[in-house]
Amino acid sequence: MLSPVMHILRQKQIILASGSPRRKELVENIGLKVRLYPSLFEENLDPKSFSCFSEFVEETALQKVLEVDNRQRAEGNSPDVIIGADTMVTLDGEMYGKPRSEEEAFEMLSRLSGRGHTVYTGVAIKTVDQVIKFSEKTDVYFGKMNEEQIRGYIATGEPMDKAGGYGIQGAAGTFVERVDGDYFTVVGLPIYRVCSVLYDLFRQNK
Amino acid sequence: MLSPVMHILRQKQIILASGSPRRKELVENIGLKVRLYPSLFEENLDPKSFSCFSEFVEETALQKVLEVDNRQRAEGNSPDVIIGADTMVTLDGEMYGKPRSEEEAFEMLSRLSGRGHTVYTGVAIKTVDQVIKFSEKTDVYFGKMNEEQIRGYIATGEPMDKAGGYGIQGAAGTFVERVDGDYFTVVGLPIYRVCSVLYDLFRQNK
Repeated sequence: MLSPVMHILRQKQIILASGSPRRKELVENIGLKVRLYPSLFEENLDPKSFSCFSEFVEETALQKVLEVDNRQRAEGNSPDVIIGADTMVTLDGEMYGKPRSEEEAFEMLSRLSGRGHTVYTGVAIKTVDQVIKFSEKTDVYFGKMNEEQIRGYIATGEPMDKAGGYGIQGAAGTFVERVDGDYFTVVGLPIYRVCSVLYDLFRQNK
Repeated sequence: MLSPVMHILRQKQIILASGSPRRKELVENIGLKVRLYPSLFEENLDPKSFSCFSEFVEETALQKVLEVDNRQRAEGNSPDVIIGADTMVTLDGEMYGKPRSEEEAFEMLSRLSGRGHTVYTGVAIKTVDQVIKFSEKTDVYFGKMNEEQIRGYIATGEPMDKAGGYGIQGAAGTFVERVDGDYFTVVGLPIYRVCSVLYDLFRQNK
């Protein structure tokens, strides 16, 4: 989608306000060169002060971008584009964070087994003169997992640092019967929407 | 999903009856070691002799597996598992093969723009004593693409050797607004179903 503006984007300094190697891989797969610059924003927003999950992830993504922007300026840098994102797993109106123990991971995964849940990713994109934020959600349907399979997955160590206790791009991908939405929203960056926004931003500048 | 049977699968000689590096990558991502052994089966089945797309891709996948199995036996090998797959893009009841020219690629992609189409992947899995075949379908929704974007994508050379004129795991992934089904059915191997079948096959042998 970006090929008509790629010659412009390739000359831009693009920063990903994230420490996630899989987000970096996603952005590089679409042909962009980016620098990872993990945000130090303490993810401490109170979910109760937001009317919906979308607003919460968008605001967290925005705060990550603004924090990185501030530090960049303090260092005398002025990146052309800063992209930030925040991903959240939800089920029955509840947010699922990172499990604090293997037992909690087991409980989370057991609840996800054999049914659908919803993953939200909020994105903020800051250029020199504007900030755009949006979010996407994708429904994910897990097949039935038996106890042995869940314990086996937990033993890989993968669930412990992941919201909802799983990473779709890892071994947990084999539990996913189908998704409805942008698959990459679940990986951590809704690629279609990110590219649409970048295309519109830089087409205007041609 | 496979962790309870992984110690068994790791000792098996698994062959992928395919020349597709992305199919190999998918299988390796779930932790299996496989050898690529491209089938020489001439993909010449007559679609008209099948009552539906599912049957067609399943039969093509099966023929690929049987051809590889024959050659393996002739060479004195007896692999434990042979996996074959065939993927097809369909729109309005029509099968889309590989475009024969850039103009045809342009026409295909223009038709896919701004709407949904359906991708089928048939799979055959042969073990020493049984053959299982099945297929999965996934709906893929492309966002609106303008002429400049389609021409830009064709210029990458990607569409020419791909059914339907695109590969979701490449730059065309940025055109995909959402999918409904197993994302990996579109990449070329429905991972959830493949793992379910392998799990059931080797759980029995434990």
